[in-house]
Amino acid sequence: MIIVLKKNATQKDVKLVTEKIKKMGLDTHVSKGVERTLVGAIGDESLLKEGQIKAMPIVEKVMPIMKPYKLVSREFKKQDTIVKVNGLEIGSNKLVVMAGPCAVESKEQIIDSAKTIKKAGGHILRGGAFKPRTSPYSFQGMGEEGLKLLAEAKKLTGLPVVTEVMNTSQVPLVADYADILQVGTRNMQNFDLLRAVGKVDNPVLLKRGLSATLKELLMAAEYIMAEGNHKVILCERGIRTFCSYTRNSLDLNIVPVLKKETHLPVIVDPSHGTGKYCLVNPMSKAAIACGADGLMVEMHPNPEEATSDGDQSLTPKSFTKLIEELKPVANSIGRKL
Amino acid sequence: MIIVLKKNATQKDVKLVTEKIKKMGLDTHVSKGVERTLVGAIGDESLLKEGQIKAMPIVEKVMPIMKPYKLVSREFKKQDTIVKVNGLEIGSNKLVVMAGPCAVESKEQIIDSAKTIKKAGGHILRGGAFKPRTSPYSFQGMGEEGLKLLAEAKKLTGLPVVTEVMNTSQVPLVADYADILQVGTRNMQNFDLLRAVGKVDNPVLLKRGLSATLKELLMAAEYIMAEGNHKVILCERGIRTFCSYTRNSLDLNIVPVLKKETHLPVIVDPSHGTGKYCLVNPMSKAAIACGADGLMVEMHPNPEEATSDGDQSLTPKSFTKLIEELKPVANSIGRKL
Amino acid sequence: MIIVLKKNATQKDVKLVTEKIKKMGLDTHVSKGVERTLVGAIGDESLLKEGQIKAMPIVEKVMPIMKPYKLVSREFKKQDTIVKVNGLEIGSNKLVVMAGPCAVESKEQIIDSAKTIKKAGGHILRGGAFKPRTSPYSFQGMGEEGLKLLAEAKKLTGLPVVTEVMNTSQVPLVADYADILQVGTRNMQNFDLLRAVGKVDNPVLLKRGLSATLKELLMAAEYIMAEGNHKVILCERGIRTFCSYTRNSLDLNIVPVLKKETHLPVIVDPSHGTGKYCLVNPMSKAAIACGADGLMVEMHPNPEEATSDGDQSLTPKSFTKLIEELKPVANSIGRKL
Amino acid sequence: MIIVLKKNATQKDVKLVTEKIKKMGLDTHVSKGVERTLVGAIGDESLLKEGQIKAMPIVEKVMPIMKPYKLVSREFKKQDTIVKVNGLEIGSNKLVVMAGPCAVESKEQIIDSAKTIKKAGGHILRGGAFKPRTSPYSFQGMGEEGLKLLAEAKKLTGLPVVTEVMNTSQVPLVADYADILQVGTRNMQNFDLLRAVGKVDNPVLLKRGLSATLKELLMAAEYIMAEGNHKVILCERGIRTFCSYTRNSLDLNIVPVLKKETHLPVIVDPSHGTGKYCLVNPMSKAAIACGADGLMVEMHPNPEEATSDGDQSLTPKSFTKLIEELKPVANSIGRKL
Repeated sequence: MIIVLKKNATQKDVKLVTEKIKKMGLDTHVSKGVERTLVGAIGDESLLKEGQIKAMPIVEKVMPIMKPYKLVSREFKKQDTIVKVNGLEIGSNKLVVMAGPCAVESKEQIIDSAKTIKKAGGHILRGGAFKPRTSPYSFQGMGEEGLKLLAEAKKLTGLPVVTEVMNTSQVPLVADYADILQVGTRNMQNFDLLRAVGKVDNPVLLKRGLSATLKELLMAAEYIMAEGNHKVILCERGIRTFCSYTRNSLDLNIVPVLKKETHLPVIVDPSHGTGKYCLVNPMSKAAIACGADGLMVEMHPNPEEATSDGDQSLTPKSFTKLIEELKPVANSIGRKL
Repeated sequence: MIIVLKKNATQKDVKLVTEKIKKMGLDTHVSKGVERTLVGAIGDESLLKEGQIKAMPIVEKVMPIMKPYKLVSREFKKQDTIVKVNGLEIGSNKLVVMAGPCAVESKEQIIDSAKTIKKAGGHILRGGAFKPRTSPYSFQGMGEEGLKLLAEAKKLTGLPVVTEVMNTSQVPLVADYADILQVGTRNMQNFDLLRAVGKVDNPVLLKRGLSATLKELLMAAEYIMAEGNHKVILCERGIRTFCSYTRNSLDLNIVPVLKKETHLPVIVDPSHGTGKYCLVNPMSKAAIACGADGLMVEMHPNPEEATSDGDQSLTPKSFTKLIEELKPVANSIGRKL
Repeated sequence: MIIVLKKNATQKDVKLVTEKIKKMGLDTHVSKGVERTLVGAIGDESLLKEGQIKAMPIVEKVMPIMKPYKLVSREFKKQDTIVKVNGLEIGSNKLVVMAGPCAVESKEQIIDSAKTIKKAGGHILRGGAFKPRTSPYSFQGMGEEGLKLLAEAKKLTGLPVVTEVMNTSQVPLVADYADILQVGTRNMQNFDLLRAVGKVDNPVLLKRGLSATLKELLMAAEYIMAEGNHKVILCERGIRTFCSYTRNSLDLNIVPVLKKETHLPVIVDPSHGTGKYCLVNPMSKAAIACGADGLMVEMHPNPEEATSDGDQSLTPKSFTKLIEELKPVANSIGRKL
Repeated sequence: MIIVLKKNATQKDVKLVTEKIKKMGLDTHVSKGVERTLVGAIGDESLLKEGQIKAMPIVEKVMPIMKPYKLVSREFKKQDTIVKVNGLEIGSNKLVVMAGPCAVESKEQIIDSAKTIKKAGGHILRGGAFKPRTSPYSFQGMGEEGLKLLAEAKKLTGLPVVTEVMNTSQVPLVADYADILQVGTRNMQNFDLLRAVGKVDNPVLLKRGLSATLKELLMAAEYIMAEGNHKVILCERGIRTFCSYTRNSLDLNIVPVLKKETHLPVIVDPSHGTGKYCLVNPMSKAAIACGADGLMVEMHPNPEEATSDGDQSLTPKSFTKLIEELKPVANSIGRKL
């Protein structure tokens, strides 16, 4: 960490700052420039209390050098992490497509969905049993009944299941039925929930928060890994910007950045990321082209009857077409689907 | 709700749309313009499933007319809600100042804080016992021990206590010690937590999420009120924008907008809102000047020794000065402090 | 346009509003809902003065139905516009790559660049002679001398030239030397400049402003077309968001949206869009995959000696590799490079 | 500037970097940490070409220490700059209110406006003769005729005039009629225009761009000052964020930050900043309370007949009330109006 002192810093000020840093357990290195004196803190930056240093009136600014994340970092582990689910690999050269309706609505709906996905060449079934909804008056999901229907669809088709867990107390129940536990966008910094899914054995799909920075997303993954669960899949699903022609702004820039910063697999959700069914196809192709390890796509047997997110769901026909069209794109960058 | 059809909509398309709306329980009203046909849905808009309508290929866009929030709305309740806490009123003509350290660190620290606040003229003691931290390796709060220290500080000074609850399972414990339950920024859309604090009797301080829209903030309050707890205090504490000279961008614009849209009291947290101690004084004055009902301010006996947020905490001296300087500002707009 | 009146609107208020609209030359259509009265304005919406209507105290909100752009719109012209430059087509099935250094620095540099681009398979030479720089103390470009060097490079290689024009008074000069005139990000709403380039015959490359909405970008193109120049090429080059791991946030979402809304060709600049050379390759692929008609890429014979933007420039070697790798991506979606 | 090298940097890499810096004319200082080697560049940072250094493959990141602005900086000039216009002072303890219609529309309108402003206690008349409009089909201003009417209104009331100049070629004309030249939001980085207004003697009101950072705003002012014109007034007028309840998000946080960073006067435009007449009063008070040196407010004799921005214009009555209510707010912080 570099501490920049204000212009008028005296010898005594420098001493105050270096002593504070030494008390925290680091070494210091003072460098006098033409206009500013800098104090470098040498050692384990995680011991530094940045706020305390910034609170010193003589400090102008503080610039961290080290990355705050450890276990998630590419420096910590050079090889790509491959998360295995029922024999399927996420993060390998072969791309993975997760698909299904926003919410589980009925036995017929989820089984229809699963069959379509299986037939089209999708790999994992998604569907919400517990639904985080902006309004308390909207459909909140079928709960455990929904989980049972997902399990039934899995049994019939062999597709592993990913579904959201909203609450620490739901973790054991959802972990029982689902193959992959999803932590939703709004819960990306629900730290108690992160710790809870860090204690189970299921892989975790961690969705980026609407205004999460790179660091915040990686630190959220770090929470899960710090509890012992290293099977974390990151998911970009749109951020909040000034643009209103999409529901959110799918931020594909983060895909190659994440692949560089972390060894964890990265998937992209263009359905939530754009909020419009007609953008799912082109943005899925773009996601694959820039290096995503897979996709999560909303598909509903009949979007015009969906209880939620009908406007961003593909029909079975357009989903099947998407998979067909993604294959050559995957091949064009040396990957498989 | 107004449904705008695509240019090429036929008589048959119009019929499909009106029938869909009627099936949802509303009446329709068709209006043919020069270039577009519009279908108006008349009746209870909350019955409409917007996603299903947008999923119809002939629909170009959908424009809601009604506000989705009810109990929180100024239309539902004309008079200002005044939340009472230990004889204190929040939302009346008299402004309320909540202050204290980011985290409870020790008995001495919290009691010193409480005494300073009391003496300076502050009204409510804040301090975190359970701390949501970006990093799993940072101090996570003293837990129940911290709650006990807050209770002790209250006993000594008479100041009511506000503190954060992070998890549904913590609600009974925190509700036992604290006067006001705080739902933090990162949990603004933790819907299970909102429902849980909606079931207790304590007032709830609901902090706006970093990227929460007006509607999302009010719908989060609606979740709490829908469970029966109408004692909700809203808190603006900074949003995420492209600006980096502040930690967040304190959005004072929402203060007069909220006062118009809702009857609930609105307070402002300039400490988190700006992240810099030197901006707390001017932005506190601005918050009062544009109509906030109170402030939440970080104050620490010694910011240079704070376990967290030292960089945005006032010293006892600057806090005392702040209160003195706020009084004439409050008077200048016809209010009291 | 739909005008939503406040809840307490009387018969008299409705009359005031309808008369105002009729005076502007449109017809009206009143619809009484359960809670609100709506007034629809029927006819040419461009005659409506939205501000005047919103200024009426009884008006709650105003919702436009029609799109404000005409000539640029896909409704106005169904077929894709193909802009021709020296026999080259921009906007056809064959993709176009514009490349070159940020600024023209010397004869050797620009001729080296042109040769590399030609050899690698690029189509158009870019290079700034007049440079908009954040600091008045930075290199501001070689001016006319730079234009001459571009012309020389064109002569040698046959590559058409695109270069920025910053000022109405420069238009004739730049139009003399360059094939395509570039209007830069910071000038996207320099309306006098838009009008000036609308009066010449050269194609115009219009770069999206850092915080430009879809509507603002299209209205800027409308300014050019309204003056008679219909050869406009739109360019996405990154927007300003809260993300700081890229210099700007390349917003690929707008590519398929633009292809739907307008008949104009759309290209993408991943160099400015991300600001990091290592992201240019993956984001170029993504841009092509989601439907862009071409790319604009910074390439410098020696980025470590570039007067500007060295950090986002490809080396000749990485540029050549990019072109090679883009070909299969183009093919995978049925296009050519 | 601190250059952070990648983990695997060798002795040879360090040498390459230090030599590059030395060639640029600065000294270096190498510091080996536990995980990273840092190279400090000591001397005049403005000589450093950041892009070139970032283009070196061994460089991980570059962190500037010095501020890039000079003449505008508080370090360069400690005392507040007071801009004098016709005997009036901007930037002194006495606040200044600029007011008037968005556009000059007629003799009657502008003279009525000027009289109202004068009587209410306003100080400067604003009004657009050249109007930057998003649509080429909207009213573009009266041009020179508008300037003449402003001059007439000034003659009658004694109020100095501020009006926008959109183009370098207009500068002499506008400078002839107006007391203060306004550079609008969309032209904040029209560098040729900045240079042109830097060469005249009139004070310049520089409006912040919609997505301008602190640095970009100050560098735009630096452009003007570098040409010799030191009479620059900065104006915050709303930034682009995700919030849609206001037209823009008035960013008051920048007011105290600017007062610390620069000696130039800072005024606030709550009319454009919020886009809603009902928010002008509370946000004006907030602007004053946090330290603005004045306001720019839209006022129209009859907003319901305004050619533009009727929705954000105050009526004469509400403007008069605003001035009355601002006086005690100014007094409460020790200033005068």
